[in-house]
Amino acid sequence: MDVIISSRIRLARNFKKYPFPNRLSSNQACSMIQEARKAIVESPTVIAQEFDYIDLEQKSSLEKLVMMEKHLISPELVKKTNPTAVLVNKDESISIMVNEEDHLRIQGIQLDSNIDKTWEVTSRIDDLLEESIEYAFHEKYGYLTSCPTNVGTGLRASYMLHVPILEATGQLKMIVQAIGKFGFTIRGMYGEGTETQGSLYQISNQITLGQSEKEIIDTLKTVTTQIVQQEKNLREKIVKENRLQIEDQIYRSYGTLKYARQLSSKEAMKLLSDVKVGFELGMLEKERKVDNIYDLMVYTQPANLQKQIGRNISVEERDEERARYIRNHL
Amino acid sequence: MDVIISSRIRLARNFKKYPFPNRLSSNQACSMIQEARKAIVESPTVIAQEFDYIDLEQKSSLEKLVMMEKHLISPELVKKTNPTAVLVNKDESISIMVNEEDHLRIQGIQLDSNIDKTWEVTSRIDDLLEESIEYAFHEKYGYLTSCPTNVGTGLRASYMLHVPILEATGQLKMIVQAIGKFGFTIRGMYGEGTETQGSLYQISNQITLGQSEKEIIDTLKTVTTQIVQQEKNLREKIVKENRLQIEDQIYRSYGTLKYARQLSSKEAMKLLSDVKVGFELGMLEKERKVDNIYDLMVYTQPANLQKQIGRNISVEERDEERARYIRNHL
Repeated sequence: MDVIISSRIRLARNFKKYPFPNRLSSNQACSMIQEARKAIVESPTVIAQEFDYIDLEQKSSLEKLVMMEKHLISPELVKKTNPTAVLVNKDESISIMVNEEDHLRIQGIQLDSNIDKTWEVTSRIDDLLEESIEYAFHEKYGYLTSCPTNVGTGLRASYMLHVPILEATGQLKMIVQAIGKFGFTIRGMYGEGTETQGSLYQISNQITLGQSEKEIIDTLKTVTTQIVQQEKNLREKIVKENRLQIEDQIYRSYGTLKYARQLSSKEAMKLLSDVKVGFELGMLEKERKVDNIYDLMVYTQPANLQKQIGRNISVEERDEERARYIRNHL
Repeated sequence: MDVIISSRIRLARNFKKYPFPNRLSSNQACSMIQEARKAIVESPTVIAQEFDYIDLEQKSSLEKLVMMEKHLISPELVKKTNPTAVLVNKDESISIMVNEEDHLRIQGIQLDSNIDKTWEVTSRIDDLLEESIEYAFHEKYGYLTSCPTNVGTGLRASYMLHVPILEATGQLKMIVQAIGKFGFTIRGMYGEGTETQGSLYQISNQITLGQSEKEIIDTLKTVTTQIVQQEKNLREKIVKENRLQIEDQIYRSYGTLKYARQLSSKEAMKLLSDVKVGFELGMLEKERKVDNIYDLMVYTQPANLQKQIGRNISVEERDEERARYIRNHL
């Protein structure tokens, strides 16, 4: 959990018998969603029993945002007005988005760096679905998808990384350029086109065709290992060269989180990011009451915060509640 | 102690038989200093027994700065290379600078708003000195002094004020202009030409001629009462209008003081000023361990801090020690 926050596997799959979502009528969407639901819910397997079916048309936008902030559904699915659904297992480590850009987006997330395990679990769900659904599949090209960039394996493998020092020193920009050559990309915490907060970034493959799933995942691991090492080397270096300045910044961030009466989401993420690094550098040990700063980052996102309060509140109230939540939990 | 930090009376006096300090030879200075010393130390009065004689030529610049930061001697006396001395009583409420701009600068300071009491005590010392010293005095003009601006009563009466809100709202500038018309001035915390820190200001009379001591002091009290009321009204107003923002700022300042690992003198003064206002507005009650923030302001000034450490230290070490001192004492 030091630099790698989570591992994520996403598989894009489509029914053979339905047009792709952008050409799907509402009626067809409803039928497709029901088939997807049955494929999981009516399966006699143990793993399938753990899933809840959630009709997103029945959900408020707050509830959808809560799921988005937890990475259970994508920002695109929150916005979509067509019939959509999601199947989520108990511990929220697997979600199956239905009628997103593709009919099915099977996603596994684990809060560790063991992406092989994440792949294994996600793949099992893929197999389970395939028992009752005929996928759109081409002998030569592999899985067919709405967007050509996903054709082939339909796989996106990614890590969420916490790289404050690479970010602060500007080295991340160089890394982004370098990994582009290997077909990898680094994006904001909610994927494509989202802003980065708290120095959280997603690294993922861009190429899905011409490589096996194993090859894609192995290259991701290799590339990421190097990035993690660079972040760690830099941390060691700055502590050696500027221990007092670093401690000062980290303790000040902690002090602000502990006492501020208003915190915007962006500022909270920045300060929590500092404190996370502080813990990892062995600082703030005396003050340490919580281990998982990432949880605080998620729970203080706008929608999650409102869910805990139990109602929609204004931005100003949110900033106040966020400050209260953090100082009570940190 | 809310807005008025201290009351100060200063009397400028000169021996009739010696030239003014700028024309005084070192030999004459030594004789004059000895006479001043005797006038106090050899007096049989109780009040005189409490005084220590300090030969400033024997003192390190650090020791002199410590006294300056406590307002026992002036910045000018720290700089002077001629023979100089100071007589200080036990509780440091009275100091008599010898061979400053005038032969004698008798100064009384009390950490409250009771300037009549301060005047009374200072005046008693003046009388005591006059028993054995013949002052330079002119029937028509009064006490004669090095600089014509002090001729007459030789009195400077002043309050030290803590007016963060008048400062922040820019109203202090207007007040400075307005009180100029009454012959009053507002300056930095160590007097003429010194920078202001922590929103501390000295208000004092500029005119010493043509008014009695009582008239000068009474006008100072009237003018100051109005300034204090304006500061208090503004505090009430901002709390009414922006309670959350004010609380946020005050608690953040407290959090920074509580956790920072490096604090410059200037930043510490600003943050302590915030916390002082916070206490006075009834905020931070749960965290309150100390009552007198002004003490912290003085003890964390560069020289006082070094005196406590017991040696001269670099600016960087000072910032570190200041942060440690404050978080241990706040």
